[in-house]
Amino acid sequence: MKASIMGGSGYVGGELLRLLARHPQTEIQSISSQRYAGEPVYRVHPNLRGLTSLKFQKENLESTRDSDVVFTALPHGKTMTIVPQLLEMGSKVIDLAADYRLKNPETYERYYSRKHVNPELLARATYGLPELHRDSIRKSNLVATPGCMATAATLGLAPIVASDMISSPTIVVDTKIGSSGAGSTPSTASHHSERSEGVRPYKPAGHRHIAEIEQELNSVGGSQIKIAFTPHAVNMVRGILATSHCFVKPGTEKKDVWKAYRAKYEKEPFVRMVSDGIGLYGLPNPKAVIGTNYCDIGFETDPHTQRLVVFTAIDNLTKGAAGQAVQCYNIMNGLNETTGLDTTALHP
Amino acid sequence: MKASIMGGSGYVGGELLRLLARHPQTEIQSISSQRYAGEPVYRVHPNLRGLTSLKFQKENLESTRDSDVVFTALPHGKTMTIVPQLLEMGSKVIDLAADYRLKNPETYERYYSRKHVNPELLARATYGLPELHRDSIRKSNLVATPGCMATAATLGLAPIVASDMISSPTIVVDTKIGSSGAGSTPSTASHHSERSEGVRPYKPAGHRHIAEIEQELNSVGGSQIKIAFTPHAVNMVRGILATSHCFVKPGTEKKDVWKAYRAKYEKEPFVRMVSDGIGLYGLPNPKAVIGTNYCDIGFETDPHTQRLVVFTAIDNLTKGAAGQAVQCYNIMNGLNETTGLDTTALHP
Amino acid sequence: MKASIMGGSGYVGGELLRLLARHPQTEIQSISSQRYAGEPVYRVHPNLRGLTSLKFQKENLESTRDSDVVFTALPHGKTMTIVPQLLEMGSKVIDLAADYRLKNPETYERYYSRKHVNPELLARATYGLPELHRDSIRKSNLVATPGCMATAATLGLAPIVASDMISSPTIVVDTKIGSSGAGSTPSTASHHSERSEGVRPYKPAGHRHIAEIEQELNSVGGSQIKIAFTPHAVNMVRGILATSHCFVKPGTEKKDVWKAYRAKYEKEPFVRMVSDGIGLYGLPNPKAVIGTNYCDIGFETDPHTQRLVVFTAIDNLTKGAAGQAVQCYNIMNGLNETTGLDTTALHP
Amino acid sequence: MKASIMGGSGYVGGELLRLLARHPQTEIQSISSQRYAGEPVYRVHPNLRGLTSLKFQKENLESTRDSDVVFTALPHGKTMTIVPQLLEMGSKVIDLAADYRLKNPETYERYYSRKHVNPELLARATYGLPELHRDSIRKSNLVATPGCMATAATLGLAPIVASDMISSPTIVVDTKIGSSGAGSTPSTASHHSERSEGVRPYKPAGHRHIAEIEQELNSVGGSQIKIAFTPHAVNMVRGILATSHCFVKPGTEKKDVWKAYRAKYEKEPFVRMVSDGIGLYGLPNPKAVIGTNYCDIGFETDPHTQRLVVFTAIDNLTKGAAGQAVQCYNIMNGLNETTGLDTTALHP
Repeated sequence: MKASIMGGSGYVGGELLRLLARHPQTEIQSISSQRYAGEPVYRVHPNLRGLTSLKFQKENLESTRDSDVVFTALPHGKTMTIVPQLLEMGSKVIDLAADYRLKNPETYERYYSRKHVNPELLARATYGLPELHRDSIRKSNLVATPGCMATAATLGLAPIVASDMISSPTIVVDTKIGSSGAGSTPSTASHHSERSEGVRPYKPAGHRHIAEIEQELNSVGGSQIKIAFTPHAVNMVRGILATSHCFVKPGTEKKDVWKAYRAKYEKEPFVRMVSDGIGLYGLPNPKAVIGTNYCDIGFETDPHTQRLVVFTAIDNLTKGAAGQAVQCYNIMNGLNETTGLDTTALHP
Repeated sequence: MKASIMGGSGYVGGELLRLLARHPQTEIQSISSQRYAGEPVYRVHPNLRGLTSLKFQKENLESTRDSDVVFTALPHGKTMTIVPQLLEMGSKVIDLAADYRLKNPETYERYYSRKHVNPELLARATYGLPELHRDSIRKSNLVATPGCMATAATLGLAPIVASDMISSPTIVVDTKIGSSGAGSTPSTASHHSERSEGVRPYKPAGHRHIAEIEQELNSVGGSQIKIAFTPHAVNMVRGILATSHCFVKPGTEKKDVWKAYRAKYEKEPFVRMVSDGIGLYGLPNPKAVIGTNYCDIGFETDPHTQRLVVFTAIDNLTKGAAGQAVQCYNIMNGLNETTGLDTTALHP
Repeated sequence: MKASIMGGSGYVGGELLRLLARHPQTEIQSISSQRYAGEPVYRVHPNLRGLTSLKFQKENLESTRDSDVVFTALPHGKTMTIVPQLLEMGSKVIDLAADYRLKNPETYERYYSRKHVNPELLARATYGLPELHRDSIRKSNLVATPGCMATAATLGLAPIVASDMISSPTIVVDTKIGSSGAGSTPSTASHHSERSEGVRPYKPAGHRHIAEIEQELNSVGGSQIKIAFTPHAVNMVRGILATSHCFVKPGTEKKDVWKAYRAKYEKEPFVRMVSDGIGLYGLPNPKAVIGTNYCDIGFETDPHTQRLVVFTAIDNLTKGAAGQAVQCYNIMNGLNETTGLDTTALHP
Repeated sequence: MKASIMGGSGYVGGELLRLLARHPQTEIQSISSQRYAGEPVYRVHPNLRGLTSLKFQKENLESTRDSDVVFTALPHGKTMTIVPQLLEMGSKVIDLAADYRLKNPETYERYYSRKHVNPELLARATYGLPELHRDSIRKSNLVATPGCMATAATLGLAPIVASDMISSPTIVVDTKIGSSGAGSTPSTASHHSERSEGVRPYKPAGHRHIAEIEQELNSVGGSQIKIAFTPHAVNMVRGILATSHCFVKPGTEKKDVWKAYRAKYEKEPFVRMVSDGIGLYGLPNPKAVIGTNYCDIGFETDPHTQRLVVFTAIDNLTKGAAGQAVQCYNIMNGLNETTGLDTTALHP
């Protein structure tokens, strides 16, 4: 397979490169960066030194012409100006931006404060969460991979919402995210001196990922789920922990919860149940998934408040972005789903 | 005033020393540590090098005999075996352990899995949260300072609960805490290699601080508050951010929330409202209170889910423990409440 | 005393504010920032919320007119265009930039790649290291405070160089510095994701602070000292550890070294000898001086290589910049040298 | 091949498992841990969850009987009591402890303060640094892998020492190391609250790795090299940066240095020259090698002090321990040297 990456100098583009460079059935045809055109990729992504002689090219649709798949890792709002042409040129497209995640153009406009320029494509695009949409992904030529925090929340909650366990349609999702989630462009918020040794809540209401999570959860369950979402920037580089507080029906027991997760995820290659509560890593901790495509899920029931707490841990750049894109790529092209994704996290 | 500290080699004992060593109206009479008896305090607390020639003594009630106030910073369960004697010897006692925080001996037994040895003292002890109990503290000779996470949650929620704004008695409190909260004794959970670059949820249901928070909130509001509490160990040394998700009545507006906080805290020397949302520090972040006795409070309303999110940031060792103890000490002894507590955090 | 700060939105300016806001004999007359003019200072420096109602003003010499002292915390190269006017207006000036640190205009030109615009002032300026130049500072109306790494290296080495102990004029100085040393302007080098979990050497030869260190050491000792200097950016916010490897004459013993330090620093209020080697903090570690004006010095002799290793730890923003400036300010104005500088570091 | 690991619950044992679990030509026969016998390995090493069903066994020579190779990752001083038996049982042994690194039993005794119990084996053991001893390793049945800091220093300095470039036999080696280097056993020195936000020098003279470095460097060069070695514990989990300050002969130019490195390492699969000085990663930074077996080497010349500064970055657990052991294992068994070691670091 030939693949191209548009937008390769950011952290998501770099993670795509890391994964695709070792993907045994892939040849990277081109990788673009306006800013670093002409430079070897290792200059920006030092981990790739010695592994590839690729150089960045100027952004340029032509250079992707013979690619079977084009990955677009460009800023939100930009990919929708390019994707129609890429599709016309015959490539499959995997978009890592937010432009094709939502089905409803009005929801898009409300959450992104701009009109979608090709709303008709929204219906044709597939939401790239394999655990929920594997079959559609297989047949799609336009896959939009989910937001990183949306991936964590949705994977943790879908089996619960689907199982008719919850007693309130409002679920509190409190997330903790590493600095790489803010991208590679320097900013005061991600300045080392400001970010270190603190916890900074941001966008406490109205975060864009709410739209995706609600779209997906309401597609698996009958009730009118609303997500009470608040993210927190913490002192780590990679990783998301989503803590979801659900109120559940009286009598809900741990074995019911286990059953719901097993039914849904038993055969999933990238979902691990981490819920024995034994030892330091008896519940999900993003530290244990860094650099991998795993989504670790664990839970606890709290009879005191009729609550089910669900913990989901992913690496925001892997299962939360590039790894998930490669998983979709494998599915779209009939490859083994785990190809190129069999990496192991480190301890410690 | 003469003060003694029992249990001075831990982080809370060290923080007490830091504050009392500069307290202009205090002479530290003795400071004990079983393990470090005979050693200068700066050997354990390097920040105090050059500031004091104090040495640790063996634990010993006699050595506190002439103290006006004894601070007990010993393990939970130990202070209740000592406090009656200290009171008999005529000292006022400020207990930083959990033994005298709860009024109800049965609740104590349920949450701490042991019987209280002098339950009759529970009624006489004052819960050392000045913002709620200043007058009682003034008259008390036994003050039990609140748990660190209980301080954060209670200060953030008391005005809300008192104002009849909430629509559900169950409030989700999701906390993020630094490693110093786990104390100075080495453990795998606080081992640098394990703690760094992760977020670890622990005790997701049934945490002991729930009992205190509910006791206090139910004493200010009429409703039957239940706290859905889950703490997370994050990669920082000092600090707590408590994120409280409350469901509120339709029509609740930001100005109502402001009014509730102003009414309660306008004159409080250690509560700062941090809720303008402007810039990087427009909401509470523990980084901005480290080393101080401040409690920063901010909030956001979320019409989408009829939710009020309250953020409270404190330093777990200062307002969450030793600073609050010194604040109580000042009140108990008729001193200016801020004496010895006028420290400024650092930026960055 | 009335003081003004030109350049108050950076980390050094903020640290000056933190110290001067509590300085009992100082009224801050004005504080400037081109970028944040009109905004309250706490918007940029969140630690100052509630402590001062000061707002930033546009840069403007007039606003400093009645100040007894003007602190200039502006970019290198800028202060030399302003200082002559400030002096003419009758203020004393404490310059925290590099413009007046070097005596020799040619050395300035070589290290800073620009011509000095008023080289005649270099001779009149005093190098603001009180431990070496207290008397000159007292009489000076233009004090240039040393570079942060120069402060650490010079204080550690001056007594050794002065004592005729060294056998080689070349001393290796290997420093480790926190991210605040790079200032508050976002950059890739100080981006949290890049800075965390790494050690980055930079400017391995030819660093500008070499010029200052050599100037000062050659003024205390007869030999032709050369500094083999290499700094490293590490994963911490504040702090410098300078490790100086000196080759010493055969027969040099620990007691000789102690003697040299005692002779020089015994009465210094901000130098602490930390060299017992006992426990975790038996040698200098910047962690123990953060937020203070201390310089901690320790050493070890290594008979195997005829080497003396000297460790010096300071907070780059305090003793390395603003604290040292306030110390000079106290001296210049006949105040007690420690006024406003009696802060204690935290543990942990 | 069948391999066993003795001492598998520490960080080095876990890293061995991570690498061998994916090694295509290896079956792990047994892995021992006194403390965790009976438990699945993922309980201790959470990264391995889902990847292996291995459980720890009690330490037991019998369980390694059919192993082609036994890796001993036990405490220093313990392996020498076991290795002779393992060799007798017919296994090849790769020892990751310090017991067989030194050739000279007297040097061993001096640096380790104990007598060696089978000094006759020292001569037969091979120092497991493939870049210097590949041929011996190939033929050896007892390989002792180097200390982590010794690996970094020796690889950086060997070509320089061999090239007759240095003017002084004493080389200053100043290292910065992450907390995983101290192992998995909790201690105050590695307690998160103490380790974070500081730089702690330790063992400033007389560190044990000096003996290895000198042994190796004196075997490649004619001169009597002495290492002036001082390590520093910094706030990161994995990684070592060794900064070596060498004094070189007048006229030594960059191209001479390049030539020396190229001659020695051009064909080495795990040595990367990182010395262009361009961009943020133009010199070695351990961040770029984490989780890999790479040793990144860069340098700068400093005409001002006739100095050559060499930077070497490795992951202390990979090239500094387990990765190097697997590299030796591949060599000893005629496998492709990079088998199982083709991992890529992350960015960021």
